[in-house]
Order: sequence, then C-alpha cells, then structure tokens
Amino acid sequence: MTTSTRARTSTSTGNRGETVNPASPVIDTEGVTALLERGRRLATPELRAAVDRLAPPMDTVAAYHFGWIDAAGAPSAGDGGKAVRPALALLSAEAAGAPPETGIPGAVAVELVHNFSLLHDDLMDGDEQRRHRDTVWKVHGPAQAILVGDALFALANEILLELGTVDAGRAARRLTVATRKLIDGQAQDISYEHRDRVTVAECLEMEGNKTGALLACAVSIGAVLGGASDRTADILEKYGYHLGLAFQAVDDLLGIWGDPEATGKQTWSDLRQRKKSLPVVAALDAGGPASEKLARILADDAKKSETEIADFTEAEFASRAALIEEAGGREWTSEEARRQHATAIAALDEIDMPEAVRGQLVALADFVVVRKR
Amino acid sequence: MTTSTRARTSTSTGNRGETVNPASPVIDTEGVTALLERGRRLATPELRAAVDRLAPPMDTVAAYHFGWIDAAGAPSAGDGGKAVRPALALLSAEAAGAPPETGIPGAVAVELVHNFSLLHDDLMDGDEQRRHRDTVWKVHGPAQAILVGDALFALANEILLELGTVDAGRAARRLTVATRKLIDGQAQDISYEHRDRVTVAECLEMEGNKTGALLACAVSIGAVLGGASDRTADILEKYGYHLGLAFQAVDDLLGIWGDPEATGKQTWSDLRQRKKSLPVVAALDAGGPASEKLARILADDAKKSETEIADFTEAEFASRAALIEEAGGREWTSEEARRQHATAIAALDEIDMPEAVRGQLVALADFVVVRKR
Repeated sequence: MTTSTRARTSTSTGNRGETVNPASPVIDTEGVTALLERGRRLATPELRAAVDRLAPPMDTVAAYHFGWIDAAGAPSAGDGGKAVRPALALLSAEAAGAPPETGIPGAVAVELVHNFSLLHDDLMDGDEQRRHRDTVWKVHGPAQAILVGDALFALANEILLELGTVDAGRAARRLTVATRKLIDGQAQDISYEHRDRVTVAECLEMEGNKTGALLACAVSIGAVLGGASDRTADILEKYGYHLGLAFQAVDDLLGIWGDPEATGKQTWSDLRQRKKSLPVVAALDAGGPASEKLARILADDAKKSETEIADFTEAEFASRAALIEEAGGREWTSEEARRQHATAIAALDEIDMPEAVRGQLVALADFVVVRKR
Repeated sequence: MTTSTRARTSTSTGNRGETVNPASPVIDTEGVTALLERGRRLATPELRAAVDRLAPPMDTVAAYHFGWIDAAGAPSAGDGGKAVRPALALLSAEAAGAPPETGIPGAVAVELVHNFSLLHDDLMDGDEQRRHRDTVWKVHGPAQAILVGDALFALANEILLELGTVDAGRAARRLTVATRKLIDGQAQDISYEHRDRVTVAECLEMEGNKTGALLACAVSIGAVLGGASDRTADILEKYGYHLGLAFQAVDDLLGIWGDPEATGKQTWSDLRQRKKSLPVVAALDAGGPASEKLARILADDAKKSETEIADFTEAEFASRAALIEEAGGREWTSEEARRQHATAIAALDEIDMPEAVRGQLVALADFVVVRKR
C-alpha cells in the first residue's frame, strides 16, 4: 500500500453504502435483475421440492431458514438472499452450449451447500441474525441447526448423484471439493479470531475458501452437467473464484460502511464482532500513524468482553472506522475488489462461449462489485 | 409379548453382560477376529491418509476422535471401535466376486460418515464420553466438533467420487441416501426425548435409520464398487439393515445390563440418560403390574432434573432395570435381536455369492449378537 493511497483515502467522504466503481462504466442493472430473477424462478421450485424430502421437523426448520415460513410456521415471502449462485449455475450450462435448465440440479445443489454452511457457521459464530430474522439455532435450538445443516449437505449430493450420469458424478466431485474448501475457510476464520494479527495474504486465502470456492463451483457446475471438458470447467471456476473474492471484498466494505437498511445487519456490524476483515487487516498492514493508532486501539479492544464491545457508542465504532479509512484499509479493499473483478473477467477470454453468455457473466461481475446489500 | 415371555424373563439371573444366544450354536470367534483384523489392516492406512488431507487444526481434532493421538497430541493406540463396517465393506466386494481391496474406498467412506455422525451426535446429545475418552466437543469445543464432522462427511464423498467411475457414483449415491437416513434417525431420537411415550414400532424405525442404514450401505458399497447389479446391492443392504437392527438391539441390552469394563460406559448408562431404548419401550408396551409400575416411576423420573437423576444410587438404577426385566423388556429385546439376526441371514439366500463369503457374513452376524461390547 502506498502513501498516496492512504492520502487519497483519507479525503474520502466516507458515505455509508458507497462501495466500488467497477471497471465497466455502465451497469446493465435490468439485465442482471432479469438474470437473478430467472435463476430464482427456475431453481426455487426444485429447491423447495428437495427440501420437502426432509423428514419433520427438519423440513419446517429448513423452510424457516430459507424464509419460506416464519417462526410460527405461517407462509412468508422472506428474503431468500441475492440468488447470485443459481443465476450463475444456469449461465454456466449456457456457457457450455446447453440449455439453462441443464444447470438446475447444479443450482439447487450449490444453494443447498451454501445454506448448510450458513446454518453451521451461524451456530459456530454465535450469530443471532441472518436476512433480517433470527437465525435457526436461535429459534429452533443448536441441535436443529446442526441436523438440518447436515441434511441439506447430504441432499445436495443426492440431487446430483440421482441423475446417475458420469457428468453428475463429476459435478458432485467438484461440489465436494468446494465444500471442503468452504469448511477449511471457516476453520481459518475461527482460528484467526484467536490471533492478534492476520496478514492480508491469510485473509485473502480464507475468503477464497469461504466465498470463492463455492461461487467457482456455481459457475462450473452447469457446464459440467452439460458435458463441458475439465479445462472449460477449470477456467469457469477461475472466473468464479475471483468473482467470489471481489464479492467478499465488497461484503467486507459493507460489513463496516454498509447501510443497515440495505444489508439487514447492524451498523458497523463487522466492527461489533471484531472481525479481522480485509479493510481492518489492510489498515493494520499499511503502517503509518493511523495504522499504529488503530493497532493500539484494537489490541485494547481485544482484551474487552463481548458485553463491553456491545456497549460501545455509535461514535466509538465510527472513530474506529475512520481510522481504518485513514490508514487506507477502505481504499485498498475497494481496489482489491476492482482487481479481482478484472481478473475474473479476463479469465473468460481463455475459453469459447456464446457472446451473449459472456456479456451476462461480465454484467453479473459488475453487479457484484456495485451492490449495496 | 406373551405372559410366558414375561414369566421366563422374570426368572432370569440378570447376569451383567449376558446378551443373546444366537441361532448358530457355535461362533467362529477366530474367523470373526481375523475378518475384523483384516478390515482394520486394509482400511486404516487409507483412512489415516484421508484424514491427513484435512487442514490444521481439523486433522489433529479428527486424529484425536479416531483415537490415534491423545488430547495432548501424543500418539496413542486408542480404541478405534469394533471395525465391523470396514470388515463388511471388504466382504461386500468379495460377495460380488471382486478382490477385497476393491471395497477399501467404500470402507473408508463408510467409516468417515459413521464418525461424522458420532461427532455431531455427541455434541447434540451432550455426551461427554466415547470409547473411554472425553468426546471431541468436550476437549476441543463445539465449533471443532461441528466443523470436523462436516469435513469427514465431505471427505467421504470425495474419496468415492475421485475414483471417477460410474460405479463410484452409484456407491456415493447409496452412501448419501444412507447418510440422510442416519440424520432422520437422529432427528427422531431427539424428538422422542421430549415425548412421554414412544411405541416399539417408532423405536425400531429410529434404530433402523440410525444403525441399520449405514450398516446396510457398508455391506453393499464394496459390491457396487465391484460392479454388482442394483438387485444384488439391494439384497446385501437387506442383510445389513437387519444386521444393524440386531446390532442395535444388543446395544440397547448392553446400555442397561452391559459390563462397564467391557463397554467403556457407566453402569446403567442408558437409564442414566433416560433413553427410550428397546427394552424400556417394550417393557412399557407390555402391560401388566411391572409395566405399570415402571411407567409410574419413569413418569416421575421425567420430571426430575439431570442432576437429580445423576445422584441416583446404584440400587435405584438396579430397581428400574429389574422392573424392565420383570415386565419382559429384556427378553423381548433378546428375542428381537435373534429375529433380526435370522432375517439378515435368510436374505443372503436370495443371491449367489462364493460360499466362503456367505459363511463369513453369517459368522459376522453371529458375532454381532453375542458381543459384550
């Protein structure tokens, strides 16, 4: 990180919710909305049918987690998330020249694995809120969070393997490898919590495992189900992996400077959790007076109890966020999102695919870095 | 349950550790010991190599769970369990005319799934001891128990799917279906805990899911990897499922009347946990004065706290065990083990296999019902 970066950053307006200006100047918002909507429309009925296979009470607990019912069991039009992964899985099939429907079992399997990891991570991390609602372990207890997570993971494999084809086996293998990385990433995340310092490289490795691996799988799984070669799948995964890192860099920006109305999280959410996210780690790595002052303050915070941190005023969090920004952590993370975004898009040039599909993958990448939630 | 059963049972000596007399009068103990030893010898190195793939600290936590190291990390020759499943997976390959080695990835995958379920179940059930040692959540904390369980489950699929064959996909599918049943069984087990009464049929369904399904998979997985037809695999699963129910009936007997020296559990272990196991459920279903007295006492016990139950004297547990026996629960469960044992062995007649393999499957079934641990 250079001095000029820090200088530029310290003059930032610090607007809440402002994230990244992507390389592409015009975002095809309508096109992306249609893509995400198509993913939801095609994958959700199959996802619900898969979850309906679960024995009671796991079916109900899972339906609550997905936002299809409320805690009392009444139907609900809850927030099912951004649905980036299903949209990618369908585009993935099209990238291999197959109809989007070929990617549906892949979309469902990836969503099941993603939600398995949310259920378990929320419990391990003690997170009480997800998508503006109480988390499953908070409502239904830790045992149900473990059990339903396990069931969703098993179901993901079942959905793929019952297709009974060699390509389905290849898809299931890629999903399994991605899931292991997801688990590795969560293990790293937990171990970093107990450490005073984490390097930027370690943080990126962890985020690549936690977010990159499964997005990568979403972008390859439809193509594999459509009979794509391993080389094509690997390059699509490269796009997805860097897209995931861009996605996560933006998430880390939103975790500090995001608008609670949009994100559904508390203000300064990641600071409340003392999360060693990219902006924090980059700021600590940067050196200089703001970085050193931040390091002293965070070292003090580390000795405090969770209750003491929860009792911080808005101003106390805001002053920490300002120091992170002054040390260059915000700007570095924005630039990292742009770098990962560019690497992702460049990977697409390594393989042939229909131009329309390439355009949509680029538009999705643009969307990921400008999103506010 | 007949009056004569109850009469016979009430004259039983109640010897600790006495379980079931199998249909076959002579048990080939040496042959079974050799089979179990072969399973351990061929599968353990591959199992250890698989677990070594886990990122730290998960590799260490898993090695502790398997008994390869102690809590301080020093190598240990711990009790790795009976290793019935690996032995079955190798025999399964031979049943399909393949060499036993063909079954090794299946043996490893089934052991990984079995241990995934132990890690998660011990945490959900709050069990503090397993194989004479503290459980993983007790030593390494709940997050590691969840995480390493997840990792072992993923690894199981990885080991099979990286074989890259159609048969490996079929094997992985069967394993996934078995895992879902395992999870269903644990969900039932948890829900039964909160109920006053459970029927014998419900208890058998739960035990079929928790124990039968994975044993069934162990007996089919080697054959599937060896190219066996779905029909052959289904019939092998039938043998394994009923073997599992026999195994579980014996486990339930040992859970009350087992010798702590042999089982590694406390005296009256299942009574301390107020477990609605087969002998209890059968005794409550039987009717008659002992059954009614037992029902009143257990209804009273249900209102007590865990600490109050833990403070019971040996005599208080012994009097409950005596009532279960007097009401016929012990004898019914012994007979149920014999019935399931006979059904398992009869299934083997539906398919062709080398006579030596059939003989070994029969010997293993005999062993399962006479075991003391």
